[in-house]
Amino acid sequence: MAEKRIGRQTIKIQNPVRIVSAAGIVGPKEGQGPLRHYFDEIIEDELWGEKSWEKAESKLQRETFAKALNKAGMSTGEVDYVIAGDLLNQCIASNFGLRESMIPFFGVFGACSTMAESMSLGSMIIDGGFADNVACLTSSHFCAAEKQFRFPLELGSQRPPTSQWTVTGSGCVMLSNKGTGPCITHVTTGKIIDMGIKDANNMGSAMAPAAADTIIGHFYDTGIAPESYDLIITGDLGRLGKNICDELLRRQGLEISDRYNDCGAMIFDMERQDIHCGGSGCGCSAVVLAGFIYQKMQKGELKNVLFVATGALLSPTSTQQGESIPCIAHAVSIRI
Amino acid sequence: MAEKRIGRQTIKIQNPVRIVSAAGIVGPKEGQGPLRHYFDEIIEDELWGEKSWEKAESKLQRETFAKALNKAGMSTGEVDYVIAGDLLNQCIASNFGLRESMIPFFGVFGACSTMAESMSLGSMIIDGGFADNVACLTSSHFCAAEKQFRFPLELGSQRPPTSQWTVTGSGCVMLSNKGTGPCITHVTTGKIIDMGIKDANNMGSAMAPAAADTIIGHFYDTGIAPESYDLIITGDLGRLGKNICDELLRRQGLEISDRYNDCGAMIFDMERQDIHCGGSGCGCSAVVLAGFIYQKMQKGELKNVLFVATGALLSPTSTQQGESIPCIAHAVSIRI
Repeated sequence: MAEKRIGRQTIKIQNPVRIVSAAGIVGPKEGQGPLRHYFDEIIEDELWGEKSWEKAESKLQRETFAKALNKAGMSTGEVDYVIAGDLLNQCIASNFGLRESMIPFFGVFGACSTMAESMSLGSMIIDGGFADNVACLTSSHFCAAEKQFRFPLELGSQRPPTSQWTVTGSGCVMLSNKGTGPCITHVTTGKIIDMGIKDANNMGSAMAPAAADTIIGHFYDTGIAPESYDLIITGDLGRLGKNICDELLRRQGLEISDRYNDCGAMIFDMERQDIHCGGSGCGCSAVVLAGFIYQKMQKGELKNVLFVATGALLSPTSTQQGESIPCIAHAVSIRI
Repeated sequence: MAEKRIGRQTIKIQNPVRIVSAAGIVGPKEGQGPLRHYFDEIIEDELWGEKSWEKAESKLQRETFAKALNKAGMSTGEVDYVIAGDLLNQCIASNFGLRESMIPFFGVFGACSTMAESMSLGSMIIDGGFADNVACLTSSHFCAAEKQFRFPLELGSQRPPTSQWTVTGSGCVMLSNKGTGPCITHVTTGKIIDMGIKDANNMGSAMAPAAADTIIGHFYDTGIAPESYDLIITGDLGRLGKNICDELLRRQGLEISDRYNDCGAMIFDMERQDIHCGGSGCGCSAVVLAGFIYQKMQKGELKNVLFVATGALLSPTSTQQGESIPCIAHAVSIRI
């Protein structure tokens, strides 16, 4: 087995790969939620001075990247790779948002698992000796996503109780083999899991088995005790999906509920903000990681975190063709 | 600078990362082209027994992966990662095509540069000690792509002379740190280049500057003499884009025309097959690599190849919003 591989899905990072900076910018609704104090900037409206929601999402990535770069005290010339992706068709938020950066670029698509996917690849690239600094970022935008995946916003369609609200926001972390900040220690890469769920308005339920599979894979491969994590956090199962994931793990003998939370369940006040099952979108787990988790780790209030971003790998076309929803979850283990 | 980094865009693979097997399946039109003898299978019609073109494209990936696996004499359990992507919205050809594989999966999006992107990441993952075997694959499908990016096929729209024909096909290479086969020696990663071209029916011209930028970056970073390559091959600039790329390189003092070709210009007989400027799509460079290039290298008829897959990172939405076309090209250096 390859030297740094410790199981079917997991590799161990040998040298410190640190998150030396993190930045998150969110939309107005996210800026009214319980995590509002952890974001770097809250934009005033969903267009942010641009002519379209898609251009606004590109701007979110561009500005978030600039903030993370600035916080790391780096110039673009010091960043060896940018790894980015988003939900828009052909990942245009990333492609247009980063086109002026002139940094070697890898585009990734893992739906809402993208943040953990980019960090997984970034960690391996640095630990493998191929780069000193890698920027990992992603974004989503409520209006652009609704327009593309569901209905025109102008229709005012009623949302079913199992639906989630796509987060408007972008999060970026700068990974480096130098400097200070929490370290990425393990990467557990998800397999595509499709349990046959077809309701595109119930993503939490569709994604929960993929999250559970990756979490079980992580503990099986590493032998780490779940108790050694202060926080195991899935990225955007929402309230319903979180409960299903928790229950699936319990049935497999893994009891984590006293240290388990979900980015989609945390980012909004579900009673007060009328968002049904919680937040979703690539940007959801990205801004919770870059804001809440990173700042808590910097203060020492969180010491060991398992970050498990989850993605539903469907498209409107696949749904219209009667397909079920393949899902994936990628985990990175972070400690101070 | 990181140990294996030899320039702004280029890394050097230290240990042998070999292409131990390759497979390609193409559509009927590709099967009538000049490279027809290099493909593993030519499907009889664009649906291939499926109910939709999208499902047929998923099947292309599934079956191509199975062929590469079989040729490598591996079981799915021996493949540590699959890295795949395609042109369909949310990359559903890959996500659905590989959902039964149960292999840790990284989805990538680099438009038509995806094959070189997946091989770049796969090489680093193996050389970094994180995996023994990584499958890299991609696909495209003429009908699915026309429907999504341009017009319904039923309209019979006339295609402008600068247009290219999306290849129906999937190509897969299995990378390994053991076995026999050509080695990947260098990876030069592209930056996003946008020269302001807005004509989505003239992708070759849009992508040529990105290809030239990466080729120049490769030679600048490595100090390799262009003459040491038997073949420098861009992936899918087509006839017009190839000429522009050649000219751009010449103006920079790099004369490669005696060893330069393009996958999009090679895959079809442009006079006889009525495809205007040549082939395009993720599958184009993938099947030319997995067929023609791989077999020529196995026979020793090609010894050193620079494979430069090129992608146009636009979407119909970005075009409708008046945006220009950001492009990228990734290069991998392969030698026997």
